[in-house]
Amino acid sequence: MRIEVKSDILGENNRTAAQLAKMFLEKGIFVLNIIGSPGAGKTTLLEKVFARLDKRLRVAVIEGDLFTEKDAARIEALGVTAIQLNTQGGCHLDAPMIERAWAELTKDDSRPLPELLIIENVGNLVCPAEFNLGEDMKLVILSVAEGADKPLKYPLIFKEAGAVVFSKTDLLPYVDFDYDGAVSDVNMLHPGVQLFPLSAKTGEGMDEFCCWLMNRAAEKKGTVVGKGDE
Amino acid sequence: MRIEVKSDILGENNRTAAQLAKMFLEKGIFVLNIIGSPGAGKTTLLEKVFARLDKRLRVAVIEGDLFTEKDAARIEALGVTAIQLNTQGGCHLDAPMIERAWAELTKDDSRPLPELLIIENVGNLVCPAEFNLGEDMKLVILSVAEGADKPLKYPLIFKEAGAVVFSKTDLLPYVDFDYDGAVSDVNMLHPGVQLFPLSAKTGEGMDEFCCWLMNRAAEKKGTVVGKGDE
Repeated sequence: MRIEVKSDILGENNRTAAQLAKMFLEKGIFVLNIIGSPGAGKTTLLEKVFARLDKRLRVAVIEGDLFTEKDAARIEALGVTAIQLNTQGGCHLDAPMIERAWAELTKDDSRPLPELLIIENVGNLVCPAEFNLGEDMKLVILSVAEGADKPLKYPLIFKEAGAVVFSKTDLLPYVDFDYDGAVSDVNMLHPGVQLFPLSAKTGEGMDEFCCWLMNRAAEKKGTVVGKGDE
Repeated sequence: MRIEVKSDILGENNRTAAQLAKMFLEKGIFVLNIIGSPGAGKTTLLEKVFARLDKRLRVAVIEGDLFTEKDAARIEALGVTAIQLNTQGGCHLDAPMIERAWAELTKDDSRPLPELLIIENVGNLVCPAEFNLGEDMKLVILSVAEGADKPLKYPLIFKEAGAVVFSKTDLLPYVDFDYDGAVSDVNMLHPGVQLFPLSAKTGEGMDEFCCWLMNRAAEKKGTVVGKGDE
């Protein structure tokens, strides 16, 4: 048994991702692909964002994880629709997985479609960066406890991402994190990238992030002809 | 162009790993493969360990990283021999890379061989767990800032590892880390595994870890016939 090499795996993934992107555009759904190390605070950020949005936006989440369903359970506890994708040890999500999760999310066609679809990728700063999932934007989340050298050490995801979150800023007094250096490295890798320092714990920076997310979803919805009246 | 599937990639890797393990056994060198997320504190732990060992052990380090040479430079600054392996974006080290690094480490045959060889893998809790590098033991390092749910979410590496470090324990007062729960999950995944809670910053737990490391190296050296007199 043989499989195609990396370039072909990526090619096939990109074809499915392009179909997904076209469909999400037609339906006016903003799709955010969240990538970060294990423990960067991806699920906690989502929990706090959804509590703040307080159903002002119809949201659905696709949760990527190796084996467990812990993260989807945390999101569903907030009344937000979540589909768990288990990669069975695989290190990233790919577009065909998103296609299957989307079919599952929308199988009950009496339910309105989401306005915002969030994909929480497998905890990994390396492999997920290479796979497009039909998203509008990748967002990378780096906890200040991980250290300020990470953008230069994992440059691809910081180049690919349209937004960067520095999470757990409440820990800044207790860790050695060269904040200005990290900001400068991120801007060097991706000039003009949107940067959000925040703490899901204390709430610092959360309003700015939620406001940005609502604006992105409204903007995407506005691009759909015939939906301007909503 | 085509490549073999995963099982054959792993088979080829394992053949090289077995040759390396045989060679390290003949030479009485203890080899530790350190795996952890980006920012778990792998390089910082090594810096503090080498400062404490204070040349009581001949050490060499193979540093795995995607692109930069930052980590090898940090280790060499302490007078410890280090070889940097850059994977050019690849998410793990494999045994043929270690073979090449070992050839580079030992090309000057007037220099004595190390007694302890440490391999610092690419920052990733997923992919490196699947690749044997000829090591005696894998060690997984989890920062308490990453959260106590990680052993169950990334079970393979916790099953594979002979030792687990909970790092950055100085942050325990500032993060929500269910310490007893994490210890219980680690013991469930790998009964009897060696567990080291420590802080490279404050020094808590560092003596125990260094002592254990020296004992492992002495034990391995003791297995070599004709080296008992050293």
